[in-house]
Amino acid sequence: MLRSLTFAFVLCAGLLGVSPTLSGTAMANDTRPDYAFAIHGGAGTIERAYLTEKLEAEYREKLLEALTAGQTILADGGSGIDAVIAAIVILEDSPLFNAGKGAVFTNAGKNELDASIMDGRTLNSGAVAGVTRIKNPILLARTVMDQSEHVMMQGKGAEKFARRHGFRMVSSRYFYTERRWLQLQYALEQKTGALQDHDAEKFGTVGAVALDKAGNLAAGTSTGGRTNKLYGRVGDSPIIGAGNYASNASCAVSGTGHGEYFIRATVARDVCAMMEYAGVSLEDAANTVVFKRMGDLGGTGGVIAVDKDGNIAMPFNTAGMYRAAVTAGGDPVIAIFQE
Amino acid sequence: MLRSLTFAFVLCAGLLGVSPTLSGTAMANDTRPDYAFAIHGGAGTIERAYLTEKLEAEYREKLLEALTAGQTILADGGSGIDAVIAAIVILEDSPLFNAGKGAVFTNAGKNELDASIMDGRTLNSGAVAGVTRIKNPILLARTVMDQSEHVMMQGKGAEKFARRHGFRMVSSRYFYTERRWLQLQYALEQKTGALQDHDAEKFGTVGAVALDKAGNLAAGTSTGGRTNKLYGRVGDSPIIGAGNYASNASCAVSGTGHGEYFIRATVARDVCAMMEYAGVSLEDAANTVVFKRMGDLGGTGGVIAVDKDGNIAMPFNTAGMYRAAVTAGGDPVIAIFQE
Repeated sequence: MLRSLTFAFVLCAGLLGVSPTLSGTAMANDTRPDYAFAIHGGAGTIERAYLTEKLEAEYREKLLEALTAGQTILADGGSGIDAVIAAIVILEDSPLFNAGKGAVFTNAGKNELDASIMDGRTLNSGAVAGVTRIKNPILLARTVMDQSEHVMMQGKGAEKFARRHGFRMVSSRYFYTERRWLQLQYALEQKTGALQDHDAEKFGTVGAVALDKAGNLAAGTSTGGRTNKLYGRVGDSPIIGAGNYASNASCAVSGTGHGEYFIRATVARDVCAMMEYAGVSLEDAANTVVFKRMGDLGGTGGVIAVDKDGNIAMPFNTAGMYRAAVTAGGDPVIAIFQE
Repeated sequence: MLRSLTFAFVLCAGLLGVSPTLSGTAMANDTRPDYAFAIHGGAGTIERAYLTEKLEAEYREKLLEALTAGQTILADGGSGIDAVIAAIVILEDSPLFNAGKGAVFTNAGKNELDASIMDGRTLNSGAVAGVTRIKNPILLARTVMDQSEHVMMQGKGAEKFARRHGFRMVSSRYFYTERRWLQLQYALEQKTGALQDHDAEKFGTVGAVALDKAGNLAAGTSTGGRTNKLYGRVGDSPIIGAGNYASNASCAVSGTGHGEYFIRATVARDVCAMMEYAGVSLEDAANTVVFKRMGDLGGTGGVIAVDKDGNIAMPFNTAGMYRAAVTAGGDPVIAIFQE
C-alpha cells in the first residue's frame, strides 16, 4: 500500500514537473562507498534576490569547511558521531546559522538553544533543550548521551549537569549578534508572535548525518529556535524521532523547518521507519515524509538523510536549504537553492 | 521482512510458553465496535506479595471509575479526546498513581509533572514538561494543543501560558503525599540516583486511548516522572512519538515504563508506523515494539493501544501493569498482573 502510494506520488510529481529528486539533492550509489556525509544549515524562503554574492560565498565557504571537517574524520576511519560533532561545532561557532553563536532571540531577549545526537549502532541518544549559557549545545548533547543514564535534559538542570562535566559557561552576551537582535525588534514591532526564523530571515537549524567506514550511522541537530518565541516552547531539534534519528537498520536523518510539524509527523523517525517497515528506498522514504506526510499537514522544511548503503537524500519543500554532501571518492556538492 | 520477523517472534514466544497475548491483554473484534477505550496506571514490578487485598481493591476501584468516566462520554457520542481527558483527570487526582496528586519527588524535593495529548484525526498535539504548579497537567497539554501554535512547552514558560489561559496555580504542597516523600528519603539514603518509580514502588505513569463513535482516535499520557530525578530530565511522556501517539490511519498508543528506552525506540509512533507501513495487526505491532524493539534494548514497560477497528492491545514486559479496557457492548476488563 505504502509502496504504491509512494510510487504514485513520485509519478504524479514527475508528471507535474516537480520531481522531488530535483527539488532537493539525491546521491544514489551502485556500490556502497566507504563513507558518506551530509550537512545542512537550515531551510526556508531562501531566494537569490535576497542573498548578495558576497553573503552567498560566505555560506558556501562555511558549509565546505564544516563538510570537510567531518569528511576528514570519516576518511581517517573515525566514527560517524565524531564527524557529525565536528561539522556541527563549526556551524554553531559561525554567526551565519541559527545555532550556537548565531542563535535568534526569544521574546524575552534571551537565547535558548536546543541540540540532539543519536548513534545508529546502539540507538543511544542525548538531547538538551532551553540551555542559555552553553557555547556548543551539540557537545552537551553528546555528554548527556555518553555520561548520563538520561536521553534528554532541559534548562537549568541541563546546565548544572554541564558544569559537573567540566563545561565552561559563556556569558549570555556571547550570543549577541546585531542581526539577530534587529530581527527580534522587527518581530516585536510587527507583533507577529513567534516568527519562524527562516521565514523572516531565511536561516535555520543546523545538522549533520554520517555513515562511517565501520558501517555505523549517526545524526546530530542544533538550533537557536524561533525569533520572538514565548512560553518555553520546545521545537523538534531536541526531540529524538522528530528533528533527529539514526538507526543502523535503515538511515540517519536531521531535519530543519517548522518544528511543530516535524514533531506531529515524527519526521526523522518516519523516514527510517518507512525504510524498515515498507522496504522503500531512502529517496522514496525521505520524499514521501517531507512532501506528503509533513507537507500535507502544512509543514515546511527539509531533511538530510544518509542510509546504510551510503545513499544520500536532501529533499525540502521550501525555496531553499543550505546543504552539502560528499561520499568517499566523490567531489563535495554544495547547494542552497532548488537546483 | 518485518512481517516474517513478527511471525517468527510470535511463534517462538508461543513455543516458549510466553505468549505475548497472554502476558498482556488483547481484545480483538470481528466487527468494529461503536467505541473502544483503554487506560493504564503504570507498569512495573507489581507482584501480589507486595499488594494488600485492600490496596488492590482501591486500585481496581479507581481504574473502574476512570474507565467508566471515559466510556460514558464515548457511549453518549462524545469525542475520544474528551474521554481520554476525563479518565486521566481522575487518575491524576488520585494519590494512587504517579501523576498529578500522586507525583513522585525529584532530587530537590519538588514535583515536576509532564503530560501530552494527541488527536488522531488532525495529528494535532500538545505537551507540557516540568510544570510544578498545575493540578491537572493533561488539561494544560490540551490547552497547548487547542489554544497555541506550539506542540510542546516546558517549565515556567508553560506555567505563564497556563495563567494566561485561566489555570489556577496550586501550591507545591498540593503534591505532598507522605508515601512519595518517604520514597525520596529512601532513594536519597540508598544513593541510587534516579530511581525508577515503578521499580522502587510499583507505580507509574497514567494514560488513556480511545476510539470514538465518529471513528476518531485519541491518546493521552501524564506522569510525575522518576523519584530522585536530577538535571531537568525529560522522560517519554511529553514526547510525541515516544510515550504518546495517535493517528486515524492506524492506532492510538500510550506508554509507561523506563522513559529513555521509549524515546530511543520511538515506541508509541512505531506501533502505529508498523501498522501503516508493514500492514501488520495492532496486536503484532504492539507486541513487536514492546518485546523486541524496546525489549532488546533492555527497556521495560508496556503500552495500551487501540486501533481504528476497535481492537485493543495492552502488552507489557514487566511483572504487572495497572490497566482496564472496554468496548461498546462488552464488559469492562480490569487487570493488574499477568493473567
